[in-house]
Amino acid sequence: MTLHIIGIGLNDEKDITLKGLEIVKRSSKVYLENYTATLRCTKDALEKTYGKNIILADRELVEKDSDSILDNAKKEDVSLLVVGDPMSATTHIDFVIRAREKGVHIDIVHNASIMTAVGTVGLEMYKYGKTTSIVFPDEKWTVESHYDAIKENKERGLHTLCLLDIKVNEPSKENIKKGSDMFEKPRFMTVNQAIENLLDIESRRKEKIFTEDTICIGCARLGSNDSTIIAGKAKELLEADFGEPMHCLIVPGKLHFMEEEALKIWQVARKSI
Amino acid sequence: MTLHIIGIGLNDEKDITLKGLEIVKRSSKVYLENYTATLRCTKDALEKTYGKNIILADRELVEKDSDSILDNAKKEDVSLLVVGDPMSATTHIDFVIRAREKGVHIDIVHNASIMTAVGTVGLEMYKYGKTTSIVFPDEKWTVESHYDAIKENKERGLHTLCLLDIKVNEPSKENIKKGSDMFEKPRFMTVNQAIENLLDIESRRKEKIFTEDTICIGCARLGSNDSTIIAGKAKELLEADFGEPMHCLIVPGKLHFMEEEALKIWQVARKSI
Repeated sequence: MTLHIIGIGLNDEKDITLKGLEIVKRSSKVYLENYTATLRCTKDALEKTYGKNIILADRELVEKDSDSILDNAKKEDVSLLVVGDPMSATTHIDFVIRAREKGVHIDIVHNASIMTAVGTVGLEMYKYGKTTSIVFPDEKWTVESHYDAIKENKERGLHTLCLLDIKVNEPSKENIKKGSDMFEKPRFMTVNQAIENLLDIESRRKEKIFTEDTICIGCARLGSNDSTIIAGKAKELLEADFGEPMHCLIVPGKLHFMEEEALKIWQVARKSI
Repeated sequence: MTLHIIGIGLNDEKDITLKGLEIVKRSSKVYLENYTATLRCTKDALEKTYGKNIILADRELVEKDSDSILDNAKKEDVSLLVVGDPMSATTHIDFVIRAREKGVHIDIVHNASIMTAVGTVGLEMYKYGKTTSIVFPDEKWTVESHYDAIKENKERGLHTLCLLDIKVNEPSKENIKKGSDMFEKPRFMTVNQAIENLLDIESRRKEKIFTEDTICIGCARLGSNDSTIIAGKAKELLEADFGEPMHCLIVPGKLHFMEEEALKIWQVARKSI
């Protein structure tokens, strides 16, 4: 039979496609890759709508148990649910490679991804350069690759989508010392933290890539009924309240007249589409 | 009430989300932006599954009748169905701007897009640069911007997704001369034509950006049950049969070991995921 890797979209139990739902219903086992904390509904809500028990599987388990998941998928239909569009993460590519080696048939059901949901903002999708991500800073080292990505994109007039860090199911440092694997509370980077981080790098490098006056766009919960999009200067967005996760930040390159018009919709005050 | 701009995915009537379907069912009017030729199902199939009459609207009509569509949406729920993820086209951004001006509430339902469906191929989504498109060459002028996009992306080690031209509902030159607005048969650029075009530009510019030996990946009908992905040298892909539309072409930048492994899945012979 088949291992179905099924995208379930960005927000809740109603974001699955009819095709995805049909497959889930006929699957003998349904795994959900443990990014539930990033969904805006409970596992119960998913189970009720899908009419199926769902096995939570953190990425480690998916990697560790991939052999048994794949062996099952040889005999029956098995579904692995993934938030967003399923093939954006390397883990799934690895899964496909190993399935091929084992002779397991793979089927992918696509869904919405944050990478195109940002189209809502009104900047041309063709004018986005490389996507980057901003991670929570560590005490010992500072990542600046996102600053460089913005710089390189800007040099070509291109926009940059910055995906913001999530820490879910990570053991805290204190607990690691104690030998305990108790998890830290999930943490989601906010637009405000992302801007702080960029201004901090700017204050050291002084290359005028991301200053207090840089126009940028903060987004929260795109694709949901209470999404928030705010466009303005970095220093203005630093004060704005974007509410619950997930957030992302867009740093535009060269703006076309039409794009400027679109950004006016989201200017200054809090607006929801 | 609200104008709902609803993505219906990449292939057929089952690619709509539960959320999208609920909204369609309660809408008083349902328009389908006339890219039906790019869907792999009929309007009838959509109507049967959605349980609604669908009004075909080519882009011109959407633009021309946007006032009446928007005025209706002031009083009732109106749905505009769009293939893929809805906000990738400038037309829809324009629509949102005008809806704002008229005080019409807009709601967007996201769905899968070719821009992330290419994740299936196994190249890191973070390593794609700017997306480009390849248009059918005109007798009088040759577009080379896609060659430049590949060049710029390659210089940074980034992959390039090339979307391929579609001609639907375009009057033929002969008919324009005759004063008739009869349409040409729809035309979809194939991977083979795209490669020919790039080799043609290479033969003039000789910058070694896209030669016969350049590794590239041709995709057809991604997200459907009979999708085709073939990776190989340009000259090999030139001979390959990708079947029905829609096609797209990926020109990789610097390949990571893991990406090379993934590409082996699609090498040489015709393979479907």
